[in-house]
Amino acid sequence: MNYKMTFHMLGQIALVEAVLLTIPFFIAVGRGESTIVAFAITIIALTVLGALAVVKPPKNKSIRHREGFVIVALSWVTMSLFGCLPFFISGYIPGFIDSLFETVSGFTTTGATVLTDIESLPSSLLFWRSFTHWIGGMGVLVFVIAILPKSDIKTMHLFTAESPGPKVGKLVSKLRFTARILYAIYVLFTLLEVVLLLIGGMSFFDSLIHAFSTAGTGGFSNKNMSVGHYDSAYIDAVITIFMLLFAVNFNLYYLILIGNFKSAIRSEELRCMFTVFLVALIAVTVSLTTAQVYETFGESLRYGAFQVASIMTTTGFSTADFAEWPTLAQAVLFILMFIGGCAGSTAGGLKMSRVIILFKNGLLHLRRSINPRAVAYVKMDGHALDAGLCGNVLAYFGMLMITLTVTTLLVAATGTYGLIESLTASATCLNNVGPGLGAIGPSGNFAAYNGFAKLVLSFNMLVGRLEILPMLILFLPKTWRA
Amino acid sequence: MNYKMTFHMLGQIALVEAVLLTIPFFIAVGRGESTIVAFAITIIALTVLGALAVVKPPKNKSIRHREGFVIVALSWVTMSLFGCLPFFISGYIPGFIDSLFETVSGFTTTGATVLTDIESLPSSLLFWRSFTHWIGGMGVLVFVIAILPKSDIKTMHLFTAESPGPKVGKLVSKLRFTARILYAIYVLFTLLEVVLLLIGGMSFFDSLIHAFSTAGTGGFSNKNMSVGHYDSAYIDAVITIFMLLFAVNFNLYYLILIGNFKSAIRSEELRCMFTVFLVALIAVTVSLTTAQVYETFGESLRYGAFQVASIMTTTGFSTADFAEWPTLAQAVLFILMFIGGCAGSTAGGLKMSRVIILFKNGLLHLRRSINPRAVAYVKMDGHALDAGLCGNVLAYFGMLMITLTVTTLLVAATGTYGLIESLTASATCLNNVGPGLGAIGPSGNFAAYNGFAKLVLSFNMLVGRLEILPMLILFLPKTWRA
Repeated sequence: MNYKMTFHMLGQIALVEAVLLTIPFFIAVGRGESTIVAFAITIIALTVLGALAVVKPPKNKSIRHREGFVIVALSWVTMSLFGCLPFFISGYIPGFIDSLFETVSGFTTTGATVLTDIESLPSSLLFWRSFTHWIGGMGVLVFVIAILPKSDIKTMHLFTAESPGPKVGKLVSKLRFTARILYAIYVLFTLLEVVLLLIGGMSFFDSLIHAFSTAGTGGFSNKNMSVGHYDSAYIDAVITIFMLLFAVNFNLYYLILIGNFKSAIRSEELRCMFTVFLVALIAVTVSLTTAQVYETFGESLRYGAFQVASIMTTTGFSTADFAEWPTLAQAVLFILMFIGGCAGSTAGGLKMSRVIILFKNGLLHLRRSINPRAVAYVKMDGHALDAGLCGNVLAYFGMLMITLTVTTLLVAATGTYGLIESLTASATCLNNVGPGLGAIGPSGNFAAYNGFAKLVLSFNMLVGRLEILPMLILFLPKTWRA
Repeated sequence: MNYKMTFHMLGQIALVEAVLLTIPFFIAVGRGESTIVAFAITIIALTVLGALAVVKPPKNKSIRHREGFVIVALSWVTMSLFGCLPFFISGYIPGFIDSLFETVSGFTTTGATVLTDIESLPSSLLFWRSFTHWIGGMGVLVFVIAILPKSDIKTMHLFTAESPGPKVGKLVSKLRFTARILYAIYVLFTLLEVVLLLIGGMSFFDSLIHAFSTAGTGGFSNKNMSVGHYDSAYIDAVITIFMLLFAVNFNLYYLILIGNFKSAIRSEELRCMFTVFLVALIAVTVSLTTAQVYETFGESLRYGAFQVASIMTTTGFSTADFAEWPTLAQAVLFILMFIGGCAGSTAGGLKMSRVIILFKNGLLHLRRSINPRAVAYVKMDGHALDAGLCGNVLAYFGMLMITLTVTTLLVAATGTYGLIESLTASATCLNNVGPGLGAIGPSGNFAAYNGFAKLVLSFNMLVGRLEILPMLILFLPKTWRA
């Protein structure tokens, strides 16, 4: 382990976070909110500690795989430990673990909350809460790579360790350039959503909050009733569309940008995502219509589409209490929690491409068992996939399910709520969705869980957002050897 | 596809089933029950159709992988389609699909029932019901191989396709000899349990029923309250021990038989199974004690041990309504449903060895990610496992979860009960356990589901018992090409 370099990088992260915190700080100043002190203390602490860590660059700047994973994992832990201070110091979230849970939920773009009355928070905190989604969506380290001139650091390991999906598409050869393009698309789409929400009559502040939370596929709203608060078909439609847009692999937007429209539209993952969306939408709408949950077919379609998009993209906004929906609709949403959006997007879950590989690998296995001599591969977008990549996806799925199993038991051990809550709390956090089913559904929250359960669930959120490896590697003794 | 040979083999199976049915037929005669006619019609139908299929042996007797899987799958379907006739014709189970569900549940050693009043059935039907567990436990085709002189058929493919677990241990080189040894151990243990239950004051008939259901790790009882009916700590203890014994890899008993006690006791799978049992038992007992479900610690331990053994071995007997137990206890049982017993035993589920491989493969993946150049393998019992075998296990797990997902949705679509029932009904059938949670828990049954759901769940039971491939292969168009 290159401890010095790890520490140095964490210092950089602390300084970046200090800069990011100045925005809510100025909001607090502008609106004369009592949170000024809390933000100031946090910014000062980050600046001092960050400066101390950064002041003397280490001689050995090498970042191997090991350091890459550890830096990624600890960056997110550091960001969360300091990012929760404004909530805690201001007293708006009384407990430290509660504040930490809320912040981890923000950065990991999960959107699970411990707040029982969201609207009682001041604007600066509500802004910071949704801003963490926006920061976490694209990845903190990608951001660092994009803005800092760090040509002397081999950053590829950082990039692969933090970016979601089974593989990082090399858009262009230069890494910093790639990161900038991704961020440019991200900013552009966010602004576009803000404008469209403004047109729908939402205030500028609310538009910003909801655009941040959509972009990161996070799901924090500043309203107790989430997007349902606005009760507007137009706003529902805009957010539904943007949730889907942010769950698409960003590489495809780059392809469109350079005029390669055909390749983008032919992407198997994209087609698969929209197929899953349509099939799920039909199932949910039929289920809602049959059970006469809403008066008209149009309403079933509207609420169904919003919720299917929200859960599949792992955003977690709600316009209805789907914990009260019929069994089929609930089962569809439960399964969508695990599937997630495309690789290379801000969405969580297994990711569509992994689901495709899992499915195709099963089919290949079946074919091989009746004809063992046949040479066959898992193909995607017309190319045969490397057997190693398939193995990685299968191992990923295995580790995800083992993590789900262990954490479900730990959450169940606290005795809060029943099995369906223990299972869906674990799953919704692991897949960075937000709401679960039963008492932790859209109309509920995670407040009732004890500190231990909240720490376990925070761990799950980080495991899910960082795609398992970085967080689990922290537990290998070998990682820490000098 | 060698259609003629497939048909010929199915004829053999029909004749074997006709012979097996004579036992409950004579019970019906002896006790003068109204089921005589139903059994007689079934036996005659099987004999006539079986004889027609067998009378002219095909010239081409080759059984390739393809035919092997298809014969296995269709054997079980044929056995079930005819085996359900006594229930249906006698009118004790009015619907054909209900009768089929009950019989599939029997042969696959699942133990899920549609009966609301088990004790209202005559002895001959209750005997046949539990006898199907005993037949299904070891495998119908293994039985055929054991008793019929078929040296001209390459039967290895049949054996691998039907036997549970990731690999078939080649005990001895001659296949028929192996099958006979396995059956001898099976019969011996069953008789031993009968004797021990008789000592505990159980009637001979009840002892036989419960020994059959324990041996097959099935779970059908002839009492409405299952083993709880006897309310005897001794009987609970005997059945707990035998459920565990039947969930051990039978190869280990062979090793002990030939004096290689050391190898048997060192088996990683065996040690793992008992570790899982102990950890689960501790968790459940603590959970029951903390929630004060029972008056004494001893009672918590007794009911906990029985239920943990029953679910882990996928038997499904019950002495308590665990659907009413605290969350942690329920979560433990839910997870045990998936783990199952050892490979090469009569237990269902993923099997302990696959769980070990999944876990070790995850760990290997973690280690490799921090040190990509390291050469490492998944080891079991001190030997490095073939990468192909690991791949098979991972693909198996993937296919199991895909099947679980699809069938959960199909069951949920019927709208009967909630999500927890849809999920656990699918899981308990797929893993051949028996009871689920909620309304289909130990005090409930599957009667309320409609015909479609029962067919889906029957399919799941067959998929689980035959370890996925044989049943899914029926859906590949390529399988049926001449």
